[in-house]
Amino acid sequence: MPAFSFRLRSTDGEARLGELQTPHGIVQTPAFMPVGTQGAVKAVRHREVEEAGAEIILANTYHLLLRPGDELIARRGGLHRFIGWSRPMLTDSGGFQVYSLAERRVITDEGADFRSHLDGTRYLLTPERATDIQARLGSDIAMVLDECVAFPAARDEVAEAVARSARWAERSRRRHAELRAGSASGVAVSNPGQAQFGIVQGGVHPDLRAESADATVAVGFDGYAIGGLSVGEPIDQMYAVAGETARRLPANRPRYLMGVGTPEDLVECVARGIDMFDCVLPTRNARNGQLFTSQGRLTIKNVRYAEDDGPIDPLCGCYTCRHHSRAYLRHLYLAGEMTAAALNTLHNLSFYLDTMRRIRDAIAFRTFETFRQEFLRSP
Amino acid sequence: MPAFSFRLRSTDGEARLGELQTPHGIVQTPAFMPVGTQGAVKAVRHREVEEAGAEIILANTYHLLLRPGDELIARRGGLHRFIGWSRPMLTDSGGFQVYSLAERRVITDEGADFRSHLDGTRYLLTPERATDIQARLGSDIAMVLDECVAFPAARDEVAEAVARSARWAERSRRRHAELRAGSASGVAVSNPGQAQFGIVQGGVHPDLRAESADATVAVGFDGYAIGGLSVGEPIDQMYAVAGETARRLPANRPRYLMGVGTPEDLVECVARGIDMFDCVLPTRNARNGQLFTSQGRLTIKNVRYAEDDGPIDPLCGCYTCRHHSRAYLRHLYLAGEMTAAALNTLHNLSFYLDTMRRIRDAIAFRTFETFRQEFLRSP
Repeated sequence: MPAFSFRLRSTDGEARLGELQTPHGIVQTPAFMPVGTQGAVKAVRHREVEEAGAEIILANTYHLLLRPGDELIARRGGLHRFIGWSRPMLTDSGGFQVYSLAERRVITDEGADFRSHLDGTRYLLTPERATDIQARLGSDIAMVLDECVAFPAARDEVAEAVARSARWAERSRRRHAELRAGSASGVAVSNPGQAQFGIVQGGVHPDLRAESADATVAVGFDGYAIGGLSVGEPIDQMYAVAGETARRLPANRPRYLMGVGTPEDLVECVARGIDMFDCVLPTRNARNGQLFTSQGRLTIKNVRYAEDDGPIDPLCGCYTCRHHSRAYLRHLYLAGEMTAAALNTLHNLSFYLDTMRRIRDAIAFRTFETFRQEFLRSP
Repeated sequence: MPAFSFRLRSTDGEARLGELQTPHGIVQTPAFMPVGTQGAVKAVRHREVEEAGAEIILANTYHLLLRPGDELIARRGGLHRFIGWSRPMLTDSGGFQVYSLAERRVITDEGADFRSHLDGTRYLLTPERATDIQARLGSDIAMVLDECVAFPAARDEVAEAVARSARWAERSRRRHAELRAGSASGVAVSNPGQAQFGIVQGGVHPDLRAESADATVAVGFDGYAIGGLSVGEPIDQMYAVAGETARRLPANRPRYLMGVGTPEDLVECVARGIDMFDCVLPTRNARNGQLFTSQGRLTIKNVRYAEDDGPIDPLCGCYTCRHHSRAYLRHLYLAGEMTAAALNTLHNLSFYLDTMRRIRDAIAFRTFETFRQEFLRSP
């Protein structure tokens, strides 16, 4: 398997065109990663995710740890083999879901003690264990365990989380090195070429973000993520913090903005130097009948589409838009057919991934600023 | 559009190899029709239904009448255009669902007066209206409205239903002729080449079945269905009635056994001269994690599959079996992922449609009896 590497191919302003090499293939950046929480992008088949243009998907460590378990997946040969996805994959650390889903959690310097939201089973997620679990899963990119704070949070609380996340980053990196060196017993490493990304926290405080970025870079990771954004702060503040943080990160490493965002967010954050994104928005909205189009958003259950024979988006070439009308999709949605979720998901994913393709083309042709203005002007 | 016709290509014992020509293409028989109740086979995409080998699907008139309505579908150009399925399609009359789903139904000689199970709207479904509704839908094969009785039923009740169904068959056929002649105003005919099948009732009474078959054949239809079976009667009785009724129908017309059945039922009834089948079993069972395989049935949630890296069926070449393990499918099912329903449906449909292909091959090679014995011997 080839080792992990990142090649910056060209820039246009702060926007970057790059290429991630991973043990399971190449990812063109800027890239959007569809979310496959439990080892499947909800409502669609892997091949459809590929056809929509996805080169990498994300899976959630928290969910897979609880069910079916990292040990079982390691015995299957890792997550790629288990789920039958042969392209690149990124796993998060599980931390974010511990904060948002788990019950009775207690965070100490050691790690996060919590109970499963499914059956109450108790788990202790430490930086080392989060690293071990992801080694068993064998994703191509593993994330360090970090401490997330809610928004808004007191500055002191954010500062403490930054300090703790920095300590955890060192422990995570050390553990990752041990696993690669084969000096950690009892952990089946499913993907020896797995890369590890650090995560910058710091809320909306520029100085804490800078401190966190510097501390994380000092540890030295294969790539850097910006966490703790898109959690309720004003959008302009999100863009500003993402941009300032990105500038502080090394140019020769990929930059991943976690959990973001709308199509407009993707364009705005690429403009600020971000290379990778993930978000449940296209898939979750699809299941709720909310569709993204070149003409703006569309709520498929609206009565205005009852007799509309046109596709969701006349400029879209996805399976759904090539085969089905708004009238039919509205019917399926109102009739409660699973197929509605599937067809809508196919479309929304295609819209997101097409947007990424257009972004990459614009950077390559050094017309990104024009693209951005036009994209944001559209309804 | 080519007119409807049926060509009997060869026989092997009572098993028949044939070809239906319809306005939307050819269907090789014996054929199994996946059920697309509301204009979509549940959980899968049209192209997947085609890839699994389906040449014709069935849609339910009752559901489409209630939502989105036959008039709306006619304004869309008919059901094929509305749902984006370009191959043959059969619609039932709506009668069976009126008996099984509708509320406060009253059956008179005029027709069935009932209220929608969705919102209580009142409808009157007469033989003429069932014909008109299907003309608007524009399926390739329309079914006459018949009166279904529960099993077990008193012989008198069955006899009355046979007599009423015969009167309704005449009215249905007359209306169909008027629609084809263009002498019925107010009905948009979406598919001028639509064929119409009569339905034989008569419960498990050989003499009533014979009476019903003769009366239906006397009216003269493009094909003949056997209704009112697989409703609780012993399986041997079902086979016997299907076989006896089939023998009484003209050899040069297709014979359709409605709502049947298991893979074994298909083989046994082909052996008794049946050409067409439909059933929700493969799709409904799939959504419940019940899978059909060459090794027998399989309940995917069973713990024995937790670490089983093999496909559902080692002899199956469907998308699911080519890409995914029992362990992964069990995980998806237990995790409540829609993708479980989709992948399971793909497999079960493939199993059914492969079985039909093998049946047709066996008839063509005049080895059907050997095939049948081997098929029924398998676990």
